[in-house]
Amino acid sequence: MTNKISFIEKIKEAQKSNDSSLIVGLDIDETKIPDFIRRAKYPLFTFAQYIIEATANSVVAYKPNIAFYEAYGIRGLEQLHKIINFIPKNIPIILDAKRGDIGNTAKMYAKSIFEDFHADAVTLSPYMGDDSLIPFLEYENHYSFVLVLTSNESGSDYQLAELKDGSLLYTSVAKRMGELNRKYKNCGAVVGATKPEHFKAVASLMPDSYVLIPGIGAQGGSIEEVYKSCSKKQRDKYLFNVSRSIIYGSTLDDFNQTAKQKAEYYREEINKYRYE
Amino acid sequence: MTNKISFIEKIKEAQKSNDSSLIVGLDIDETKIPDFIRRAKYPLFTFAQYIIEATANSVVAYKPNIAFYEAYGIRGLEQLHKIINFIPKNIPIILDAKRGDIGNTAKMYAKSIFEDFHADAVTLSPYMGDDSLIPFLEYENHYSFVLVLTSNESGSDYQLAELKDGSLLYTSVAKRMGELNRKYKNCGAVVGATKPEHFKAVASLMPDSYVLIPGIGAQGGSIEEVYKSCSKKQRDKYLFNVSRSIIYGSTLDDFNQTAKQKAEYYREEINKYRYE
Repeated sequence: MTNKISFIEKIKEAQKSNDSSLIVGLDIDETKIPDFIRRAKYPLFTFAQYIIEATANSVVAYKPNIAFYEAYGIRGLEQLHKIINFIPKNIPIILDAKRGDIGNTAKMYAKSIFEDFHADAVTLSPYMGDDSLIPFLEYENHYSFVLVLTSNESGSDYQLAELKDGSLLYTSVAKRMGELNRKYKNCGAVVGATKPEHFKAVASLMPDSYVLIPGIGAQGGSIEEVYKSCSKKQRDKYLFNVSRSIIYGSTLDDFNQTAKQKAEYYREEINKYRYE
Repeated sequence: MTNKISFIEKIKEAQKSNDSSLIVGLDIDETKIPDFIRRAKYPLFTFAQYIIEATANSVVAYKPNIAFYEAYGIRGLEQLHKIINFIPKNIPIILDAKRGDIGNTAKMYAKSIFEDFHADAVTLSPYMGDDSLIPFLEYENHYSFVLVLTSNESGSDYQLAELKDGSLLYTSVAKRMGELNRKYKNCGAVVGATKPEHFKAVASLMPDSYVLIPGIGAQGGSIEEVYKSCSKKQRDKYLFNVSRSIIYGSTLDDFNQTAKQKAEYYREEINKYRYE
């Protein structure tokens, strides 16, 4: 069973009711959480409960990265299910999984992400081409953010490879994702804020897509630069993710108060330029 | 805890004792298995037991694709653990997961694959560059097969993009993986047998790497063409995967006998050219 309300509807509602384009990344590392929580029966879930209670009025979506739960085996994944259940129903969930495999395998991954975890959206890797993406796009109420230009330093290794016609590889990916979005209406991009000079190309090749933007917290990307590169109409489709700077803003027992303040700070920072 | 015997040692031993370069892919789809097994408490595990008992003397490694277990949620992953435990200790396990994420996340994925599942080797996607691969390569007794040129049709979408210097994108990946292998000694490639004209480039850019080769069963790639493209010294490092043609060779109750025959057939087909 797939979701009945579309990702896009949920995003629009949450963006309006919370006045926010901030995604909080739930990348919970047991070694970085306060001692009293680490001793709980479900430490990842308990920590997430505090974070979600503190930030649920400040976000447009939550984005758990599945690797952080897989690392703790079955126990970790059970906690991810609990976290997904705990997130208020009006807040969409993007499961950051960066999956990418051939068609019949991609179907299995899509089943896992959309039918077992009931995530509203997913992140995908494009290296294996259309085959590996389409089984996800066929879930019409769900959304797929495909890696176009990532925020990490070595993201440049291949994504910025110069092609024969002078364009860079990521623009080929963006162009194709723009086409897939015209057909399926649910194909977006991941583009890191650390490379703002490339946003213009993505904005023009994927004019109607949502863009998931990591890299503004600890990694230092500029919100202002990103918004400068897109049209006013696109601004509400640009969603900024912050993980560590919010959830590990403090290691003290009042970490949830710090998380609340940090989330409000980032929400305001984003809105400052979103409404400019 | 990581494995004590290296993947390379295990491969060499299994290749010798079973006289085989055949990997059997354990991509088990509940809808494709005989009825009497589908009704078992652990259908994926039960089916795998039959397949493993029938083929354990014919293979150099097993390769479960994790997507097929994730699709069945926690219950599926529990069965993957059971399967991994059931595989004879002398047969190495390649967990086909095609992971690829930034450094701190890649560490989490590596912990899941190598420490929770205890796989000997993994498959990885290179789109995010070195950052996303090195945390896996740092597990010295384990092995990573990085997607270079995949067997699916749309693998060409970006992998065959022509770069400014006239080379194709996958050769940049292969070149870098060859460098990483000189440093870490545990970096290999995935190259589909459906594109044999490209093996020569990979053989020369990654002279000392193991190569995982899908595409010879249902997909029709040629073993002969692949071996023609590499040196005699490299032949034992070229490992061929067959999944569906072996495990779903028959839907009757004697499917395990068919799997045994098919595995022996492919082992012999591979050896015919390996020893030529």
